[in-house]
Amino acid sequence: MTTVAAYAAPAAKAPLERTTIERRPVGEFDVLIDIKFAGICHSDIHQAREGWGEAIFPMVPGHEIAGIVSEVGPGVTGFAVGDRVGVGCLVDSCRACENCKAGLEQYCTGGAVGTYNALDKNGEPTYGGYAEKIVVDENFVVRIPEGLKLDEAAPLLCAGITTYSPLKHWNAGPGKKVAVVGMGGLGHMGVKIAHALGAEVTVLSQSLRKKEDGLKLGADHYYATSDPKTFEELRGTFDLILSTVSAPLNLDTFLSLLKTDGAFVNVGAPEEPVRLNLFSVIGGRKTLAGSGIGGIRETQEMLDFCAEHGFGAEIELIGASEINEAYERVLASDVRYRFVIDAATI
Amino acid sequence: MTTVAAYAAPAAKAPLERTTIERRPVGEFDVLIDIKFAGICHSDIHQAREGWGEAIFPMVPGHEIAGIVSEVGPGVTGFAVGDRVGVGCLVDSCRACENCKAGLEQYCTGGAVGTYNALDKNGEPTYGGYAEKIVVDENFVVRIPEGLKLDEAAPLLCAGITTYSPLKHWNAGPGKKVAVVGMGGLGHMGVKIAHALGAEVTVLSQSLRKKEDGLKLGADHYYATSDPKTFEELRGTFDLILSTVSAPLNLDTFLSLLKTDGAFVNVGAPEEPVRLNLFSVIGGRKTLAGSGIGGIRETQEMLDFCAEHGFGAEIELIGASEINEAYERVLASDVRYRFVIDAATI
Repeated sequence: MTTVAAYAAPAAKAPLERTTIERRPVGEFDVLIDIKFAGICHSDIHQAREGWGEAIFPMVPGHEIAGIVSEVGPGVTGFAVGDRVGVGCLVDSCRACENCKAGLEQYCTGGAVGTYNALDKNGEPTYGGYAEKIVVDENFVVRIPEGLKLDEAAPLLCAGITTYSPLKHWNAGPGKKVAVVGMGGLGHMGVKIAHALGAEVTVLSQSLRKKEDGLKLGADHYYATSDPKTFEELRGTFDLILSTVSAPLNLDTFLSLLKTDGAFVNVGAPEEPVRLNLFSVIGGRKTLAGSGIGGIRETQEMLDFCAEHGFGAEIELIGASEINEAYERVLASDVRYRFVIDAATI
Repeated sequence: MTTVAAYAAPAAKAPLERTTIERRPVGEFDVLIDIKFAGICHSDIHQAREGWGEAIFPMVPGHEIAGIVSEVGPGVTGFAVGDRVGVGCLVDSCRACENCKAGLEQYCTGGAVGTYNALDKNGEPTYGGYAEKIVVDENFVVRIPEGLKLDEAAPLLCAGITTYSPLKHWNAGPGKKVAVVGMGGLGHMGVKIAHALGAEVTVLSQSLRKKEDGLKLGADHYYATSDPKTFEELRGTFDLILSTVSAPLNLDTFLSLLKTDGAFVNVGAPEEPVRLNLFSVIGGRKTLAGSGIGGIRETQEMLDFCAEHGFGAEIELIGASEINEAYERVLASDVRYRFVIDAATI
């Protein structure tokens, strides 16, 4: 066991504080990673505050991890000491179900293991990326290409893959009109990726406050959803709407913006149920769907795609002592566009 | 103008009564049809009672029409006097929008014209199939193949196409597990069609009351949704669930029955909004979708498919004086499986 410094929430809704945790010994197929950077995802806050249900405490959040390999187990074949690597939302899965075999570990029916707020196969709680080091099976580690800066790469491990996967699955590309709802951590990545995939991209944000940024990141159009005229003007426009917000939306009005056979895909996850008039999907044979992160293979594909197109996330680098303040700013949508913790300050 | 006998609701929620209406003169591209049979669809009741919003009265419902051509306009090329024909939910559309050009007249963005409870291009109210005769543009008339009895064919014009279209669109067929929710007018057609398409078919009905019928019509399995064990046992089972019921369901529990990437498709249309936890679609990248009737070309394809497989609807033939009683029985799910009015009794 190795004792490492970490930031943890000792109980639900309590502020995070510096502590130490134990990492398991490096096993045969394990990689020990010196964490360099960890992104702060909105879902860290949902979980640390039990917004999504009962959670495991103390909790070390963090599933957007970028670092350097410092040790490998004897059976490891894919990584060597010194490699630049990342870890996302999963550190294990059953590896036997149909989904695991198809590279859809995120939908593992045998029980995927979250990077934190989960129990591993031995029943031990997992601890995430707000820490100095982490030990992960090499099958759940991805390579961060040279072209990407480690700090800007960290948020790709969740915000990047969570938007890349549905954009690919629902065929965002040339000739397609794609709207991204929300210009936060996920949304700004959705804009970059949809643009890089060749789609015509519209941002639907509450206000026009971040319009200039949105256009710079690749959006072709930018509308405020607080303006009712937006919904009149854009009626029947989009092939795909990717919603990255976790506040409950008026789904019926958003569905009215889709073309026939269009899809509205949620990657943001509201804590409360939403209401829906089923006529909103019957007229125009529309789809309301969801998508959760992505598989390991696809995460590597996404990182390679981002490197090839020369972009990571837009980040604000913070020290570990600023985590609690950063949480409040995330909740106030006051971040451009992802907080990343410099792990050297933990 | 031709005066014809019909059954109409004089006002919202009022019983239907015998009356007369005027049909327009047979225009250049029109077909005059002697109506032989008209099905009673649940949506006739929704509309006659204004459950879906404000409606036009007097209302002659009926969009499951089977009859014989008795006159054609000089420009008609597809039909001749004596032909066996059907008319479904639409009698016109803009014919110019992308959807019309693609044969998706039901999603016409220029304004499709319903067979009743609508205004035609001249602003005149349309009257449906509970009548002796109807005049319809030949583009909205389909041919009923010789192999189908006219009375059993009538319900195909709505119940048949409404289930056939989504089953085809979402690839029901060999190797696919399809559930049909509800064993009413739409549901029993869903079972027959999904079975004929080669899918493994499960009925999810409130009770096991109609189990024997369901199995006879082609279902492989039959479960009661009133039994909570059904939802445990069938968790993660289906590629496609077709919901034909218009009562609001607990969508979260039904979505749990889908496999990864499965689709829950509504063709039943509840009058009230439904509640949904978006995690139910995010986990497993699931789809909640809707589908409304089908296009004219696809309606013909469906009739040919049913004829080829040797089935129409299961019907209870009634006289026109029994319409109001039949409405009550539809609302009580007491019909096996579609009431069809013998138009000779109007």
